[in-house]
Amino acid sequence: MQQLIMAILLALIVTLALGPLIIPMLRRLNVGQPMRSDGPKSHLSKEGTPTMGGIIILFGILAGTLSFSMAGMEFVLPALLTTFAFGLVGFLDDFIKVKLKRSLGLKAYQKIIGQLGIAFIVALYAYKDPYVGSSIYFPFFGAEWNLGVAYIPFIMFVIIGTVNAVNLTDGLDGLASGVTMIYSLAMALIFMLNSVYAKENGQIYYSVNLEGMSVFAAAAVGASLGFLRYNAHPARVFMGDTGSLALGGAVAMMAIFSRAVFLLPMMGICFVASAISVILQVGSYKLRKKRIFKMAPLHHHFELKGVPETKVVAVYMIVTAAACLVGLLAYV
Amino acid sequence: MQQLIMAILLALIVTLALGPLIIPMLRRLNVGQPMRSDGPKSHLSKEGTPTMGGIIILFGILAGTLSFSMAGMEFVLPALLTTFAFGLVGFLDDFIKVKLKRSLGLKAYQKIIGQLGIAFIVALYAYKDPYVGSSIYFPFFGAEWNLGVAYIPFIMFVIIGTVNAVNLTDGLDGLASGVTMIYSLAMALIFMLNSVYAKENGQIYYSVNLEGMSVFAAAAVGASLGFLRYNAHPARVFMGDTGSLALGGAVAMMAIFSRAVFLLPMMGICFVASAISVILQVGSYKLRKKRIFKMAPLHHHFELKGVPETKVVAVYMIVTAAACLVGLLAYV
Repeated sequence: MQQLIMAILLALIVTLALGPLIIPMLRRLNVGQPMRSDGPKSHLSKEGTPTMGGIIILFGILAGTLSFSMAGMEFVLPALLTTFAFGLVGFLDDFIKVKLKRSLGLKAYQKIIGQLGIAFIVALYAYKDPYVGSSIYFPFFGAEWNLGVAYIPFIMFVIIGTVNAVNLTDGLDGLASGVTMIYSLAMALIFMLNSVYAKENGQIYYSVNLEGMSVFAAAAVGASLGFLRYNAHPARVFMGDTGSLALGGAVAMMAIFSRAVFLLPMMGICFVASAISVILQVGSYKLRKKRIFKMAPLHHHFELKGVPETKVVAVYMIVTAAACLVGLLAYV
Repeated sequence: MQQLIMAILLALIVTLALGPLIIPMLRRLNVGQPMRSDGPKSHLSKEGTPTMGGIIILFGILAGTLSFSMAGMEFVLPALLTTFAFGLVGFLDDFIKVKLKRSLGLKAYQKIIGQLGIAFIVALYAYKDPYVGSSIYFPFFGAEWNLGVAYIPFIMFVIIGTVNAVNLTDGLDGLASGVTMIYSLAMALIFMLNSVYAKENGQIYYSVNLEGMSVFAAAAVGASLGFLRYNAHPARVFMGDTGSLALGGAVAMMAIFSRAVFLLPMMGICFVASAISVILQVGSYKLRKKRIFKMAPLHHHFELKGVPETKVVAVYMIVTAAACLVGLLAYV
């Protein structure tokens, strides 16, 4: 537990310290991401806020993770690499948006190839890992489900779905960072408990690797918390796709290495709500030429219904906290 | 740990459910607390927001606590009673403000007598308790300091100082509830760890009582979290003195029964900042006819310096989280 606290604090300190260094650089680099002109009117005042702040989060996660878990790298290293790989895809996307003034960033096929590529490598790695591979664990029932080789496309779906769901959840000040912080805190505790159980069962090597993941999750907590210092309403910096794809990668890796992939839709219910609302909106419009929501993702729908931005963020965080507490119940 | 999670969830659910019942009643009861006319201008729009929302928090704490800790009542019962007693003092204060339109509420001597009375009873109770009484514990050093009968006035000072510090910290949307939530979460973990240690040392009865306090702290987490649903910016309800004095009582009782009273100024650094800033401001003005801060408590100073309200609240919560993590380090 000491390791967890130190990782949170270190990631927090690094993130807080980097803010004043990196935010002015980002401001010089770009004159802010062009706002979606079809978004809520209240967002027009956000024009000029620099994006790509996810870089700060990435440094925080790196510092928090690497300083405290040199022992078990079997899970931590791929988790870090995946986070950074998705961060890189996001960074390219952000960079093209900002520099080439192309509001939509990377071309769709470029994004898909990038994401599929990373997802395939991760899925293969997890499949081959003797502790993680091929079977899914159902926490509340204690059941296992061996998917065989179908585990690979399933995990690819989990990764790509999660990354894009977290990406869609980014859009209000403090929303993606706040929700991810709470999710990561719960996962840090779950990994810690799992590590203790594994140790009690004599699986020392597995235990050390789970401990590593608990530190990784703790670093994500500290980095998100530190980022909130600058990203809370009114935001001085946005994480951009750099941040949201990276955090999406981190969230997916925590779910995969905990083996309880089926807890993710519950504990990450806000991510799911973002993704599902977009799917329903697009589907409904294509099929019936009618919109279900005033705007998708869901958080913009609430805003257009008149709920203040800060209140939507508070409710998303409270809902996530409640869902994560229920998830934790499976392990205590 | 299961008990903790259930207490948080229950307090959260009760608080969330009571909001829509109690807030309209409060709105009918009063037409909102008159705002301090010398406060930040941005606060004028808050006129009309009902106060006394602390009632909701009290129900949340009660529900969360009582449902899960029937066994050890030696700490929980006085903690609950103290919370409610201070809540009652606050309620009288609020009620007079709202109904008699007397902006300053109870008269100073009435408040002081009420607070001194409660504090004396609590201090005497703690002094006589075989597990708590007369000595203070220093967590990082493992040292004990026996105060003898001086323990009683010392604890009275702790209680009255804490209650008024939390009271002063109330003044921005989500500030007192957010900071108290984080403090309580850390204390819930500290009580849980202490309970485990006591059990390992064969102090079963003490262990059960500490477990009760961990549930009490968890209930305070859930109640504060649920209250934030309505109290987050822009607030639909204020906790009033009903809430801030009650939470102050709860915070003090957690510190006293954990015996680590000296952690309170660190973990509750934001409460301390509120109190000290008022003392310095008043002292400086009396001695030198000069103000140190643009306005006291400190959070209004930041606001008048141009920091947005939501950002001040975010920073207070982040600072509290960091301070509480350092406090937790003493126990892991």
